[in-house]
Amino acid sequence: MGLFIRSLLSQQPRHVWRAYSTAASDITVKAMVYSSYGKPSEVLKWHTYPLDPLTDDTVHVRFLASPINPADVNQVQGAYPLKPAFEQLGDTKAAVGGNEGVAQVIATGKNVNGLQVGDQVVMARSGYGTWRTHAAGPVTDFQKLPPSDKTSVIQKATLTVNPCTAYRMLKDFAPLKPGDYVIQNGGNSAVGQAVIQIAKAWGLKTVNVVRNRPEIDSLRQELMDLGATYVVTDEELGTHEMRTTMKGWFGGKPPLLGLNCVGGKSATEMARYLGHNGHYVTYGAMARAPLALPASMLIFKNITFHGFWMTRWTDQNNEEDRYKMFEDLIGLMDKGALGEPRWTKVEWNEDSMKHAVDAGIQGFAQGKQIVFPTSS
Amino acid sequence: MGLFIRSLLSQQPRHVWRAYSTAASDITVKAMVYSSYGKPSEVLKWHTYPLDPLTDDTVHVRFLASPINPADVNQVQGAYPLKPAFEQLGDTKAAVGGNEGVAQVIATGKNVNGLQVGDQVVMARSGYGTWRTHAAGPVTDFQKLPPSDKTSVIQKATLTVNPCTAYRMLKDFAPLKPGDYVIQNGGNSAVGQAVIQIAKAWGLKTVNVVRNRPEIDSLRQELMDLGATYVVTDEELGTHEMRTTMKGWFGGKPPLLGLNCVGGKSATEMARYLGHNGHYVTYGAMARAPLALPASMLIFKNITFHGFWMTRWTDQNNEEDRYKMFEDLIGLMDKGALGEPRWTKVEWNEDSMKHAVDAGIQGFAQGKQIVFPTSS
Repeated sequence: MGLFIRSLLSQQPRHVWRAYSTAASDITVKAMVYSSYGKPSEVLKWHTYPLDPLTDDTVHVRFLASPINPADVNQVQGAYPLKPAFEQLGDTKAAVGGNEGVAQVIATGKNVNGLQVGDQVVMARSGYGTWRTHAAGPVTDFQKLPPSDKTSVIQKATLTVNPCTAYRMLKDFAPLKPGDYVIQNGGNSAVGQAVIQIAKAWGLKTVNVVRNRPEIDSLRQELMDLGATYVVTDEELGTHEMRTTMKGWFGGKPPLLGLNCVGGKSATEMARYLGHNGHYVTYGAMARAPLALPASMLIFKNITFHGFWMTRWTDQNNEEDRYKMFEDLIGLMDKGALGEPRWTKVEWNEDSMKHAVDAGIQGFAQGKQIVFPTSS
Repeated sequence: MGLFIRSLLSQQPRHVWRAYSTAASDITVKAMVYSSYGKPSEVLKWHTYPLDPLTDDTVHVRFLASPINPADVNQVQGAYPLKPAFEQLGDTKAAVGGNEGVAQVIATGKNVNGLQVGDQVVMARSGYGTWRTHAAGPVTDFQKLPPSDKTSVIQKATLTVNPCTAYRMLKDFAPLKPGDYVIQNGGNSAVGQAVIQIAKAWGLKTVNVVRNRPEIDSLRQELMDLGATYVVTDEELGTHEMRTTMKGWFGGKPPLLGLNCVGGKSATEMARYLGHNGHYVTYGAMARAPLALPASMLIFKNITFHGFWMTRWTDQNNEEDRYKMFEDLIGLMDKGALGEPRWTKVEWNEDSMKHAVDAGIQGFAQGKQIVFPTSS
């Protein structure tokens, strides 16, 4: 901004450049915070503190919906590589829990460009607590979402982790053409379901491995309805029959991309189905067992084994590339190709939040747990 | 070649265009061949057959030296992914053993370009038997070596597998700058020793893991003399002391390239020393145990696990790139930066060859076993 313009602006009455009056600094934030790492039910606490007043260079946002993801829980436990700094929040030095969510801009400082009141935003980086009613910060803390009137608040609140992980893994590791196969385990996980839908929209076929269970037929049907090409159980995976069957499916063109969030023996079995020069991407370890690689798979089949962590991708890539991904994904959501994840509502209070975190630890959560932070 | 030139050539007496007379078709090839896969001492046999007569488009070569590599033995056993075709060799349909060696051109057909009598060549592809005195074939079967008067026949005969493997692994997987560390196990293997020397010539530092043994001090000295920066034992690798020690060596810049020909537990330990975004290349499995990867190494440290197989590289890359690599390596050999491997001579007869193959199977071979095929 040139000197002339700046001096011109400084002569204007301040309120012209504010979206609301100074009374806005009366906003009280309610948040789920922690001041040390440990057992979530012990270290998480309900906390209220005054929202930092709006400045010329900051915005105020109000959170609409925030999920409680497994990684959020690991983070509170101190068992996650991403450790947010403890900041002064009112009378307490603490970090706000949660990493994902959608918020709406409710006020902008006079120097702010790129965000307007009413815009919906996600966090610009991981580790920015989302279990709170409001936040104040510079524009660079937030990233605007592409406009959409068909994508739900649930879809927006859960956009940046699972659908983005699925999107990047399908795009960044193997050169795939329509008609090509992808094989994945955890086909029923949130990422797995996003993989199925995005792959289908892009003309890719998927073989989806799930754990065997009594209600396998209904699960199979559910995933087929989402767009899965085939669903197989981990028990079937290593059998001679399945090897023959899959050969028939692939017709000489075995998958060049495998996606693994399980680990252990069946993850090794899955890797055997990849074709020469294939890529195998690990993004989770639900079985809590390492991935054992026979050397021949590396040396003679030339399978490359990668890891994927959405947090790293976001840190290492620019806003434009992330926005392009959001546009693609919200485009798929708008046309119904990528649906809402299964989710349950968590009440916005201390007890419910702690209960939800516990459910997350114990694996009792049915679908994504989502809170809708409100001041009232 | 224009019509005019061709008609001119056809008017010349044939012998002008031959390097030697038709009596050359009297050459008898002696070779170590096999007609089926199995126990090498049973399926390998000594065989003599007439060399195919020279044609306008072929050359005759005489083998100077050929190693007996472990992969050659696996190939005879049928346990290697590369299976040469059984061809008619005189009265027998068989494959000649061996994959590596250096030969000299002794005759060229009149249409042959690019090779002259006296040129030294290696095989253009793997699976071209080298345990024989002579071979006849088109120019495309062979690749000329860069001229050198200081590089020994042993170095040329053992150029295409081990030094090339070391060269490619140091060059193709991680962007390394002088001063950077590389960590490898099997530091005492033929590839390991080539890695040490090439790395040193390129200004890279190496941490070399070897199995502990009574004569560890002399082995350590031997590798240091070759140019190793540090030598550690597999037993030291997982200890708290070694973690602290290596941190000191690396000074905040841990290696971004790990080279593994061992597998098993200590190979996983070695991977822990890599820095974020590092690359880990497996090219062997001496411990015959899979490589177990903790998911965190993939997801949070973003280590990528590759395989390397020289045979595939040769098949997928062009002659120019291979020649460039030969030039670089022979340049290092000429100036003494890359020495002869340890080797022992194997007599060129059936019993000695079978004995050498057995020694290879049992791991008794002291250094590379090399034959010097002769007709006499």
